[in-house]
Amino acid sequence: MPDPSLLAQLLDRQEITAVMAAYARWADLNQPERQAATFVQDCRVSYHPGDWIAGREALTEQLRAALARYVQTSHHVSNIEIDFEGPDTAAAQSAVIAWHRRHDGSEWTLYGRYVDRWTRTEAGWRLAERELRAAGAVGRDDRELPPLGRACGTPT
Amino acid sequence: MPDPSLLAQLLDRQEITAVMAAYARWADLNQPERQAATFVQDCRVSYHPGDWIAGREALTEQLRAALARYVQTSHHVSNIEIDFEGPDTAAAQSAVIAWHRRHDGSEWTLYGRYVDRWTRTEAGWRLAERELRAAGAVGRDDRELPPLGRACGTPT
Amino acid sequence: MPDPSLLAQLLDRQEITAVMAAYARWADLNQPERQAATFVQDCRVSYHPGDWIAGREALTEQLRAALARYVQTSHHVSNIEIDFEGPDTAAAQSAVIAWHRRHDGSEWTLYGRYVDRWTRTEAGWRLAERELRAAGAVGRDDRELPPLGRACGTPT
Repeated sequence: MPDPSLLAQLLDRQEITAVMAAYARWADLNQPERQAATFVQDCRVSYHPGDWIAGREALTEQLRAALARYVQTSHHVSNIEIDFEGPDTAAAQSAVIAWHRRHDGSEWTLYGRYVDRWTRTEAGWRLAERELRAAGAVGRDDRELPPLGRACGTPT
Repeated sequence: MPDPSLLAQLLDRQEITAVMAAYARWADLNQPERQAATFVQDCRVSYHPGDWIAGREALTEQLRAALARYVQTSHHVSNIEIDFEGPDTAAAQSAVIAWHRRHDGSEWTLYGRYVDRWTRTEAGWRLAERELRAAGAVGRDDRELPPLGRACGTPT
Repeated sequence: MPDPSLLAQLLDRQEITAVMAAYARWADLNQPERQAATFVQDCRVSYHPGDWIAGREALTEQLRAALARYVQTSHHVSNIEIDFEGPDTAAAQSAVIAWHRRHDGSEWTLYGRYVDRWTRTEAGWRLAERELRAAGAVGRDDRELPPLGRACGTPT
């Protein structure tokens, strides 16, 4: 029989993965309140370098303003890695492709990474912290986005 | 010990997820019969608003015609959410990026969502119903595609 | 109670999936040694048709040279299918979108597929073999890339 605690972790991974998908789904449906409900009340969130949003109310307003800049978006989350730090907390990373179409018809695509902390609440797993990092972007100057931290390797 | 019925659901989720991947793989290999074999015999499928294909034979012919319009396609499925409605039925959603190259060399990319119903059969889990919705498309007029249902929010 | 051997396989699937994500993460962080550490010592790897890299040292050098051609990359892995061939070996396939920006600012995007063999080692599951196949590419002549094997179907 496999280790019961590892099986219990599989159930937790499944739930976290589902909430990651819901975050993206509510974004693309332009439902900022529901998107923010994937976070705990006292969450910390950063979409720009050094700029941390504190708390779900502030986050909701920022998401509302951000989503209103677009007529269409599509967020695609993969490469999910979850490391449990205790029974009720986890660190997680995932990769995202986020396509955006602005009101003027122009588009930009983010190739990014979410760096998260998750907490188990009475209502299930929720995001306690999410930091966006950008591998790059097309259709937008990505020097204004938070860098991924790629090593500066050169051929020898 | 975790709840055995939740563990059994994990096995069902794994199987459904694998069939979702097979649907995409057979599409990209231009194997419409095998792609259609991921559906039950009396399936309902919609790729265009209000237009439902009834049954696996009709679906196979539609897939054959659709795939023949392209020299290359690539379907990437993520954001999988599965909700069991009983031991043998499930509702599921997933996000898809589908890149297509036509015979004239032109390309288009779909940023979409599959809204599914799944059924357990003697041969395993199969698609009973799949409806495509489009967050947007690049390289094609996406006003002809079924909309995602994005809320019309505006900044306040 | 679900079949214990299938539950044990779920744990193995989880571990293989996590290593697939790590391969992509280390690539995008330009860490070729760590990327190569997702393979066994005597691995076989092919990124070009008929050209097999033998062993982790040769692979590390090839990855180092390949990553040095870019200032930014982003690898997005989905559609994961894993078939166990024994308790300690598995065949796997996955789909990848890999965005690349060259030093001159030009970009190309791969729509590809990894065809793998995995082995359980004392340190966990590792890639024994990985072959890249390309559904297509944008921003680069994809006739030089290994083909997916798409059937040459035509409408009847």
